[in-house]
Amino acid sequence: MEHSKPLPSYLVQRFHGWKATSYNANQSWYRHLVSEGQHPRAMVISCCDSRVHVTSIFGADHGEFFIHRNIANLVPPYAPDGDYHGTSAAIEYAVGALKVAHLIVLGHSQCGGVQGCIDMCEGHAPHLEAKDSFVGRWMDMLRPHYETVSDISDRQLQSRTLEKQAVVVSLGNLMTFPFIKSRVESGDLSLHGLWHNIGEGGLESYDAKSGDFVAV
Amino acid sequence: MEHSKPLPSYLVQRFHGWKATSYNANQSWYRHLVSEGQHPRAMVISCCDSRVHVTSIFGADHGEFFIHRNIANLVPPYAPDGDYHGTSAAIEYAVGALKVAHLIVLGHSQCGGVQGCIDMCEGHAPHLEAKDSFVGRWMDMLRPHYETVSDISDRQLQSRTLEKQAVVVSLGNLMTFPFIKSRVESGDLSLHGLWHNIGEGGLESYDAKSGDFVAV
Amino acid sequence: MEHSKPLPSYLVQRFHGWKATSYNANQSWYRHLVSEGQHPRAMVISCCDSRVHVTSIFGADHGEFFIHRNIANLVPPYAPDGDYHGTSAAIEYAVGALKVAHLIVLGHSQCGGVQGCIDMCEGHAPHLEAKDSFVGRWMDMLRPHYETVSDISDRQLQSRTLEKQAVVVSLGNLMTFPFIKSRVESGDLSLHGLWHNIGEGGLESYDAKSGDFVAV
Amino acid sequence: MEHSKPLPSYLVQRFHGWKATSYNANQSWYRHLVSEGQHPRAMVISCCDSRVHVTSIFGADHGEFFIHRNIANLVPPYAPDGDYHGTSAAIEYAVGALKVAHLIVLGHSQCGGVQGCIDMCEGHAPHLEAKDSFVGRWMDMLRPHYETVSDISDRQLQSRTLEKQAVVVSLGNLMTFPFIKSRVESGDLSLHGLWHNIGEGGLESYDAKSGDFVAV
Repeated sequence: MEHSKPLPSYLVQRFHGWKATSYNANQSWYRHLVSEGQHPRAMVISCCDSRVHVTSIFGADHGEFFIHRNIANLVPPYAPDGDYHGTSAAIEYAVGALKVAHLIVLGHSQCGGVQGCIDMCEGHAPHLEAKDSFVGRWMDMLRPHYETVSDISDRQLQSRTLEKQAVVVSLGNLMTFPFIKSRVESGDLSLHGLWHNIGEGGLESYDAKSGDFVAV
Repeated sequence: MEHSKPLPSYLVQRFHGWKATSYNANQSWYRHLVSEGQHPRAMVISCCDSRVHVTSIFGADHGEFFIHRNIANLVPPYAPDGDYHGTSAAIEYAVGALKVAHLIVLGHSQCGGVQGCIDMCEGHAPHLEAKDSFVGRWMDMLRPHYETVSDISDRQLQSRTLEKQAVVVSLGNLMTFPFIKSRVESGDLSLHGLWHNIGEGGLESYDAKSGDFVAV
Repeated sequence: MEHSKPLPSYLVQRFHGWKATSYNANQSWYRHLVSEGQHPRAMVISCCDSRVHVTSIFGADHGEFFIHRNIANLVPPYAPDGDYHGTSAAIEYAVGALKVAHLIVLGHSQCGGVQGCIDMCEGHAPHLEAKDSFVGRWMDMLRPHYETVSDISDRQLQSRTLEKQAVVVSLGNLMTFPFIKSRVESGDLSLHGLWHNIGEGGLESYDAKSGDFVAV
Repeated sequence: MEHSKPLPSYLVQRFHGWKATSYNANQSWYRHLVSEGQHPRAMVISCCDSRVHVTSIFGADHGEFFIHRNIANLVPPYAPDGDYHGTSAAIEYAVGALKVAHLIVLGHSQCGGVQGCIDMCEGHAPHLEAKDSFVGRWMDMLRPHYETVSDISDRQLQSRTLEKQAVVVSLGNLMTFPFIKSRVESGDLSLHGLWHNIGEGGLESYDAKSGDFVAV
């Protein structure tokens, strides 16, 4: 692979800062995580968005969360067709191999993927409609749910409602995986839906009874 | 979705701790990230492993890295077939919409996905061979490269070599995306391969000239 | 002591989270506990096991329980020989200085100490037999009672029976302390034996009449 | 054991409250802790004092800390003489069986054990001098260190200084255990000394370089 380059120096410098401080202070823990293996309590499915720091929000350290991040924190439905399914593979490993106790889907405000979905549905994003748009095809997962927000005129309320809907859709798709359904029903696994307000530092939790998201 | 539960109280408590301290101290920055949008400098593709904290290693704060995490930090080859491609969607968004300057693939020691691939290739993991194993099918991406490590008798050396090989394979697959190839060739984007030693806090960078990984 | 290190940063962060929330909300109570002294109603003797949270199970706040935790929640018999006796010192302080009204011995399922005792008695734990094994010597206290469970073939039932037996043994040893015996007989102190099922969240209380543990 | 009584009803009621709320919300985690075993990151040695809540201060949940609590959070020196050594047994289990990464000694303000030691040394506590006083004999461990504070006239400063000294003595005694010394020297275990101000919610960490305790 002749096209790769050395690490930018600002990251080299930061790495050495981490090594001299945090690593040094936690060396015994990092070695424990190697000799004893990882035993994370929860898997978190969040967005790639640079403004979403799940470890920061929850004060989580190395070893606590198994984290998958994709566009708009979406979980596709169960489809064991032999193709590459990155999200499903991550979920299978977390539940089957690591036996995590919690699956947490973490949505957030200002989600570019969800906004792209709205733009597509309103005819403003022809580039996302193209067959070779991976973002467009990925967001097709959420597209049928646009109609639930199509008549909301307040743009911010519209995106937030669909961002939260995306979390609920993912929770529903999780239940289509047989190994998840059985563990949820036996009480060995629990599912949780969250929505994070980046600017206000808010956190809302999906309440299955009311169907609403409520501040934690 | 009647199966979801409220957020466990230990996370509620930690969130409120974060809100009262870190959020409070950085509120102006988080609001800026909302009003001005995210402008991450780099995209990082790392593993879901709970022991890999890319933000920690590089002292990164909210807004700095667009992060995709999947099993074994793998990038599939370009395949615009209209199916769901979570990794490709994340890459397309980072490069096309956010115009990041760096794509960093971060491998690591003790990778369960890579070990699973070795186990499959050696006939020790029939459950991963099943068509409905998402982890197995996902690791098929790396399978053709097992032969490059099949004659290494030292088990640790064998996994580390394949872990690093996975990084190089992903860098190669990145170049199969037309929108990446053109930007790399025009100098608008650079690719970087890294391998992180969890227990020792080490970091090695892929050197395209020698084909080796060298300590940063 | 040149070998100690600073507190790991994840705990520093969590502490500041606690300070900004729980402490802030309860400051007047914590100051009251300083100015007026502690007046706990009960002493609890529980295991060190990380899965046993006596304050959580009983919703106890600062100032409610004087808590001693050791391996397998054992109380040695009264032995005023001038040596270091950590458990007996804790009991003496709770009863003599604080005049608690209740002494609660809290056993639990999956107790590693009790399992170690069984392993020793069955000849499977030579490392615990060594004179320099503190765990082995500590569990010698329970060893004579192995014979009461030696013919139970169901392994889970066997450990649970001995875990409960350990609670009864400790209650018996408590009565060998003259200052406890007199207070129990005068009605100024009461003893209670409990066994907690970690996975099922169960709690059983020792019933002196029947000699059995019954769900509370 | 005919002397024990049923659990007081206020605790029965609280237990059922916990069962219906916290247990219900965390059932999957508690079952995980049973099926996968406990893997605590740290052992904490703290005082039995009802005002010291280590899990509260650090927002720790079930499974995080292996906790031993005794009078004045003291660790006796290594003495493999075959007698009962509760503190040493707890430490052996944490380090040898659970392989914790951190040993944290947590002292605190208003410590009754330390105050008793000062009272003894100043001739004001004849009852603690008696051979059959377990508290007195336990505090003998700290007695040789009274001379370092004997000329401090401010009573609060005097106790705080000895409370902190007790933490340092315990850290020193931990290093007399061969299995601790070797793991500390290899970087697989780290020791930490803390002192907690109950009324002010403060936390100070022992700094090995300066020999002082500094606010975290």
